[in-house]
Amino acid sequence: MPAAISRFPVPELKDLAPDVRSRILAVQEKAGFVPNVFLALAHRPDEFRAFFAYHDALMEKEGGLTKAEREMIVVATSGANQCQYCVVAHGAILRVRARNPLIADQVAVNYRKADLSSRERAMLEFAMKVALAAHEVSEADYQALDKAGFSRDEAWDIGAIAAFFALSNRLANMSSMRPNDEFYLMGRVPKDKK
Amino acid sequence: MPAAISRFPVPELKDLAPDVRSRILAVQEKAGFVPNVFLALAHRPDEFRAFFAYHDALMEKEGGLTKAEREMIVVATSGANQCQYCVVAHGAILRVRARNPLIADQVAVNYRKADLSSRERAMLEFAMKVALAAHEVSEADYQALDKAGFSRDEAWDIGAIAAFFALSNRLANMSSMRPNDEFYLMGRVPKDKK
Amino acid sequence: MPAAISRFPVPELKDLAPDVRSRILAVQEKAGFVPNVFLALAHRPDEFRAFFAYHDALMEKEGGLTKAEREMIVVATSGANQCQYCVVAHGAILRVRARNPLIADQVAVNYRKADLSSRERAMLEFAMKVALAAHEVSEADYQALDKAGFSRDEAWDIGAIAAFFALSNRLANMSSMRPNDEFYLMGRVPKDKK
Amino acid sequence: MPAAISRFPVPELKDLAPDVRSRILAVQEKAGFVPNVFLALAHRPDEFRAFFAYHDALMEKEGGLTKAEREMIVVATSGANQCQYCVVAHGAILRVRARNPLIADQVAVNYRKADLSSRERAMLEFAMKVALAAHEVSEADYQALDKAGFSRDEAWDIGAIAAFFALSNRLANMSSMRPNDEFYLMGRVPKDKK
Amino acid sequence: MPAAISRFPVPELKDLAPDVRSRILAVQEKAGFVPNVFLALAHRPDEFRAFFAYHDALMEKEGGLTKAEREMIVVATSGANQCQYCVVAHGAILRVRARNPLIADQVAVNYRKADLSSRERAMLEFAMKVALAAHEVSEADYQALDKAGFSRDEAWDIGAIAAFFALSNRLANMSSMRPNDEFYLMGRVPKDKK
Amino acid sequence: MPAAISRFPVPELKDLAPDVRSRILAVQEKAGFVPNVFLALAHRPDEFRAFFAYHDALMEKEGGLTKAEREMIVVATSGANQCQYCVVAHGAILRVRARNPLIADQVAVNYRKADLSSRERAMLEFAMKVALAAHEVSEADYQALDKAGFSRDEAWDIGAIAAFFALSNRLANMSSMRPNDEFYLMGRVPKDKK
Repeated sequence: MPAAISRFPVPELKDLAPDVRSRILAVQEKAGFVPNVFLALAHRPDEFRAFFAYHDALMEKEGGLTKAEREMIVVATSGANQCQYCVVAHGAILRVRARNPLIADQVAVNYRKADLSSRERAMLEFAMKVALAAHEVSEADYQALDKAGFSRDEAWDIGAIAAFFALSNRLANMSSMRPNDEFYLMGRVPKDKK
Repeated sequence: MPAAISRFPVPELKDLAPDVRSRILAVQEKAGFVPNVFLALAHRPDEFRAFFAYHDALMEKEGGLTKAEREMIVVATSGANQCQYCVVAHGAILRVRARNPLIADQVAVNYRKADLSSRERAMLEFAMKVALAAHEVSEADYQALDKAGFSRDEAWDIGAIAAFFALSNRLANMSSMRPNDEFYLMGRVPKDKK
Repeated sequence: MPAAISRFPVPELKDLAPDVRSRILAVQEKAGFVPNVFLALAHRPDEFRAFFAYHDALMEKEGGLTKAEREMIVVATSGANQCQYCVVAHGAILRVRARNPLIADQVAVNYRKADLSSRERAMLEFAMKVALAAHEVSEADYQALDKAGFSRDEAWDIGAIAAFFALSNRLANMSSMRPNDEFYLMGRVPKDKK
Repeated sequence: MPAAISRFPVPELKDLAPDVRSRILAVQEKAGFVPNVFLALAHRPDEFRAFFAYHDALMEKEGGLTKAEREMIVVATSGANQCQYCVVAHGAILRVRARNPLIADQVAVNYRKADLSSRERAMLEFAMKVALAAHEVSEADYQALDKAGFSRDEAWDIGAIAAFFALSNRLANMSSMRPNDEFYLMGRVPKDKK
Repeated sequence: MPAAISRFPVPELKDLAPDVRSRILAVQEKAGFVPNVFLALAHRPDEFRAFFAYHDALMEKEGGLTKAEREMIVVATSGANQCQYCVVAHGAILRVRARNPLIADQVAVNYRKADLSSRERAMLEFAMKVALAAHEVSEADYQALDKAGFSRDEAWDIGAIAAFFALSNRLANMSSMRPNDEFYLMGRVPKDKK
Repeated sequence: MPAAISRFPVPELKDLAPDVRSRILAVQEKAGFVPNVFLALAHRPDEFRAFFAYHDALMEKEGGLTKAEREMIVVATSGANQCQYCVVAHGAILRVRARNPLIADQVAVNYRKADLSSRERAMLEFAMKVALAAHEVSEADYQALDKAGFSRDEAWDIGAIAAFFALSNRLANMSSMRPNDEFYLMGRVPKDKK
């Protein structure tokens, strides 16, 4: 018997509202499997819709931060929040998007020791402050982002991604959401070596 | 000159997409003023839509927790996160919904010393754990909720509200979102005394 | 039956030593009610006398900090210590003394986001350090006060008030001291609106 | 040149009010030297009077806790607050009052590893909670004291001493109050060995 | 130019004392590469010898805990200490020794959510307490190990491994020791799939 | 019956391997008694040998830091880790090596308030960071040591001693290792006063 993917009910695909089912089938088509977060949130269709609309607005937005940078924020803050689902799943996506098999494990454990540019380091310092001590965010923190070349619009993205995964990490931890086995190896083997 | 309500751009109503503007006008109609969170998030229409869809799915849901209980979770966890906007704005809503002029200040400062039923205390203990140490949530925490009479569906609500305001508190703190002056006095004067 | 104001014995006025009773009647005369801290400490007359002598020496002292500034220190540090009695009671006094219905709630939740002058901010930064990490206070902290225009005598006041309420907050929390209902609304309605 | 005993002014004995000077001369007569706390607080005579009145009400009170037990609370909580003056000065008094040359260093570093009776351990557990997390004190903490044989009146003493030294530790740390050299060796050499 | 493996000098093999060089060549022979910890500690031959003697005494000891269990303690406590070298290098060894490609990432992020037996969970709870709050270890912690079936001799092993990696994690973090690229993929691909 | 010196077995001298026994007899010859750490680790001869080899490599090394400076690092970090054995035993050695009867108690409670040179303060700031937050050590920390006149080789010593006692403190706390009574008075009485 496979391990449970959530403490909460996991509906069957056939019982879902059509738009929720379509969204899930689309991601399955693209990824080759259904990431468990889609199944674990499906028992609450309205929250499911809002969650993924929010996620896409932040993570799939055109312009500004690269997609790899966005995933890097997710992995660093999810590591700090000890969220297994988000570190494993977004770690996989980060490896793929950054075409770098090492970066996710580095950032998840201690971003200060990771192979980062100074721009990336400034980005993660702001993200970690929003994740861990948002009540202390001040003008000085924005000036550090300015200095690293980020626009205020990009500053919002960095902070908002950290804030959204503050939500996501808590949902995953409270529900003991289990990452799919497929994520662990994704992006680790360079294409030409396979 | 009035104090800024956010570090980020605040668009004018006339420049907003029709659905965003409608939502804002509707809340203004009902409350008598526009809560600043609507204006502070409007520069990002997709995130605005997702944020309020998520908010409503959790806070306006029929059945299960009462609306006063939901607001109580918001106030307690926002106090712990030192989020001025959420404590002041949701404190007002809590006073109104609970018809209790004292409860919001009590819960914001230290829920352990508030005038709570044992059910409410169990609810806030779980919510605070999701807010502050979700990585440690375990079966024992769910059993404490069971014992206090909450269904697993209500347990999800408690945790999900705490998780959603982990996001909301971080957005408000990172943007220095300012609560409207109107909130401070709302619900403090019993109707028959006015 | 009204809620208990303390876990410990609360003597009746008639059973108190004359000087203790006089002090209580005087405050009742002035405030219109007896703040519960007077009743909650009365079971220990010698500690009562020392507590209020110390309180008055710091809070009623002529010159130096304004009385509103002194109360602001109390509210900020009591918020950090999660002391319901002191936040509610001194929040009321702060609103009255500062003639500002918003400031107490702002300072109690997160002084960094409150409507403060740079002088007030420097004052609260020092007070919070004494409250939360006095073992790290160093020359640099005093220099920051110098720069904000405080004399060393005023620096003592700031730190000593934070230190005295470290005591007061702990007494209130250990005894579950209950703030009087009257405090919650005090100073919230501008005089000309009543 | 001897090291400063405080960052703040230290008046000369001849310039003090008669009652303050008398108090200081009395302690000098008894101890053989003037503990620096008397000199460091003398620049504020009203606070001096209140401080020592409070101190004596708690530490010199007849009945209830033994004087050694009272000092043990001071040393344990002052160690947790990293207060050099209070650990060194009250460590000396504890050694003398307990007639035990080892106990002060044990309790200052880690009371859990000290040579304590189960009564003393329960006392220090309550005192440390008041010192470090008074906002979490609950009925269960009082029940633990009951079980260890303490009356509620003694419970107040334990908590009030921890609370008073929360004040005292902060004053000493903020003023860099220096313990007298005499304290370090007091009570370390058994009388019959000298 | 390859990234530095340490902030401190890294001697060349030819310049090392014969016993140090032999040890390094032996591990190279066995692993196929030289783990960077051997090179990063070689500038201090006496510390090198003591470090690896201690390591082997704890990690290669016959009997008691399995080798996979020992590595699990290393990975969990190194994750808590944010030590990149130890999480990546010992994560690899754990995958190999446990023949489980998922376990290391699970344990590094949050052992409470990992696929563990109740015995393994009890083992890691004790190890984490030694790593993070050894001053609070008490008889109750040993009783929990007894109940999970560990002998007192095995209890020593669990605690001593956590203690040794408290040292190792600090050396790696202070020197910015870099894990070899080879470790990231080790043990991730089941043998029969390669 | 004397108090136990460890929760774990303490072998008799006659049952020890010759090299372990010789080492113990040598220290007894020199100190006049056997420090309990030798007895408490003897049940694990291989760990005993590695522990003392490592200890001597760091603490008895010629050149660089003085022996008093090395002991000062031990006492400050062991105080922060609440390790009774190490504070008491190394406090004694520090008093002797620094010929200063006050310094150990000062450093154990709060090194910021101790009688230190600016060089010693810089040394302890680095050591405390390695002890308490090694994952945050950065180039800026090394620059602070450079500025205080330490070579990089000495920087290693400072950090490595802090790291080694992170191990040692955890072993002592997990085993409830008891300091010998002899340590408490050592170095407190100037030679010419005895």
